[in-house]
Amino acid sequence: MMDSVRPRTEELIAEKLDLERLLAAGGGNTFRVADLGCSIGPNTFHNVEHIVQQVRQKYNHMMMTSAAPEFQVFFNDQVNNDFNALFRSLPPERDYFAAGVPGSFHTRVFPNSSLHLAYSASSAHWLSRVPPEVVDRGSPAWNRGMIHYGSAPKPVEDAYRAQFRKDMGGFLRARSEELVSGGMLVLVFPGLPDGMLHSETQAGSVIYCVNLSILDLVRQGVLDEDQLDNFNFPMYFPHPREMRELVEENQCFSSIELEVVDPEESTWLQGGVGLREWLVVIRSTMAESFARHFGGEEIVDKIFDGASQKIAERAEVIMSTKCKELPLLYVALQRN
Amino acid sequence: MMDSVRPRTEELIAEKLDLERLLAAGGGNTFRVADLGCSIGPNTFHNVEHIVQQVRQKYNHMMMTSAAPEFQVFFNDQVNNDFNALFRSLPPERDYFAAGVPGSFHTRVFPNSSLHLAYSASSAHWLSRVPPEVVDRGSPAWNRGMIHYGSAPKPVEDAYRAQFRKDMGGFLRARSEELVSGGMLVLVFPGLPDGMLHSETQAGSVIYCVNLSILDLVRQGVLDEDQLDNFNFPMYFPHPREMRELVEENQCFSSIELEVVDPEESTWLQGGVGLREWLVVIRSTMAESFARHFGGEEIVDKIFDGASQKIAERAEVIMSTKCKELPLLYVALQRN
Repeated sequence: MMDSVRPRTEELIAEKLDLERLLAAGGGNTFRVADLGCSIGPNTFHNVEHIVQQVRQKYNHMMMTSAAPEFQVFFNDQVNNDFNALFRSLPPERDYFAAGVPGSFHTRVFPNSSLHLAYSASSAHWLSRVPPEVVDRGSPAWNRGMIHYGSAPKPVEDAYRAQFRKDMGGFLRARSEELVSGGMLVLVFPGLPDGMLHSETQAGSVIYCVNLSILDLVRQGVLDEDQLDNFNFPMYFPHPREMRELVEENQCFSSIELEVVDPEESTWLQGGVGLREWLVVIRSTMAESFARHFGGEEIVDKIFDGASQKIAERAEVIMSTKCKELPLLYVALQRN
Repeated sequence: MMDSVRPRTEELIAEKLDLERLLAAGGGNTFRVADLGCSIGPNTFHNVEHIVQQVRQKYNHMMMTSAAPEFQVFFNDQVNNDFNALFRSLPPERDYFAAGVPGSFHTRVFPNSSLHLAYSASSAHWLSRVPPEVVDRGSPAWNRGMIHYGSAPKPVEDAYRAQFRKDMGGFLRARSEELVSGGMLVLVFPGLPDGMLHSETQAGSVIYCVNLSILDLVRQGVLDEDQLDNFNFPMYFPHPREMRELVEENQCFSSIELEVVDPEESTWLQGGVGLREWLVVIRSTMAESFARHFGGEEIVDKIFDGASQKIAERAEVIMSTKCKELPLLYVALQRN
């Protein structure tokens, strides 16, 4: 869990989680936690460990007379996630039962009313697919020459937003069926303060520089123009307002907290992140998709070498963007 | 599921499974099934599909007023099982929620009272390890020159039996904690009729020929004697009497059925299995361990080429063994 949101989650569990109600609703004496979009660890293990520890503490503190609950943790990610790697690195001393659940979290992956707490860190901004309009030459939303909506014309951003609405709508609908009454849903993922554009953040500027570098490679004939036009990065960074609307449309959740975490609190970025660090973060997010789409590691090196130069040239402008860090959205909901 | 035991399981579900009691005990409206020792499919999918279908039919037949249960199936195997392959081959049209559970079924892998039906096909005869005495030169149970207990002196068989008692004891203890009251445990795995020795079966004879072939390779200097002495195959084929004793010692289960399935019913072997087919079956079971222990595919070929010759030489004797087919033990227990 990002350190900055850990105290929030602790508070949430201490104050809002009604253990007796939850265990009665879920049946048996098992407290079931899901980490949605877990990847291969080890972050997911830290997050889960923290949650289990907090709930256990709360239980002990209440000195409930029934037997202490046992914990079952479901690690969920796409079916092409490396679950073998995940399973092999499970902490041997864990005090929960572990299971892996393959499947898209935009749809149902758990039985009805079977989860007590669902958690997702750094995953909910991934779209289920590239919005089809942005790679359609006939569409006004065709994202020619660009790899993301950040610095693209409005129709492109609209297409991304529509895809996010569809995906997050499905996500909330699935969780509203899977969580027991009183169960909690906690999401932490990059988002934007209301009114701010993605292009007004440093992360947005860095992605733009990556894009410019790819355009150079197209101009040099290293990459094909069609290849570029067929590539779009399936991520959307919503505003709190958009998330709030989706939660209201869903009707099954009460919102406990829905806010942008002040970047100052993001200790992993504390002291200000340099542009070089941003490039590393963005490379780690994008490299695999680039390698798959553009064919190989060598091209990825070329793309990021070029991007590094673009960033150096534009450093002053970039450093003066509105938002130095890509903020986090913290969304905590309770199932009615 | 082996076709021969499918009707037994159908009957069991139809007659002995108390659905109302089970769903009340397990809480919520989820029916939870575990396949223990699932490997990578596709057999596990057929087994599970069959079980889910039978339980669903029974539910529909009862015309219960509550909402139909949803099914959650846990595929369990050792942590080094290829869960990625398993997940990728999950039937896309399945009508259950799937999860993978890494860990040894000789210990707890699920929360208390969380399963309604646990099933294990062709796995419960695997030991958690080679009994330590049989590879200890100082022990009277040292299994010098042999790879299994089948044709070995009695102390070796005793060591294997003791390991099986420990492992199956742990297996039953774990399941008695994981199954809800009224829940079912069904095991199908190779075993022997009371009073019969493993060496009195064709499978035993074929394994013995494999052993003779390895001894030849040691004599020829292709394999090292120490290498052979350090290798033992961690499988035990119990008698119904032994299983009955372990169930009674556990005290948490009522035995519904515990018997050797008449080999005549084993349709996969119907018409009698030839010695060549046995060698194929045994090779598929042993090849990986051999390759790992003796170093490479080439040695495995040599071992089985030699074994094939030994079998040809002894064909008449082998064909006249007491038991032409290695029988199956069918064990159906209900949690008190």
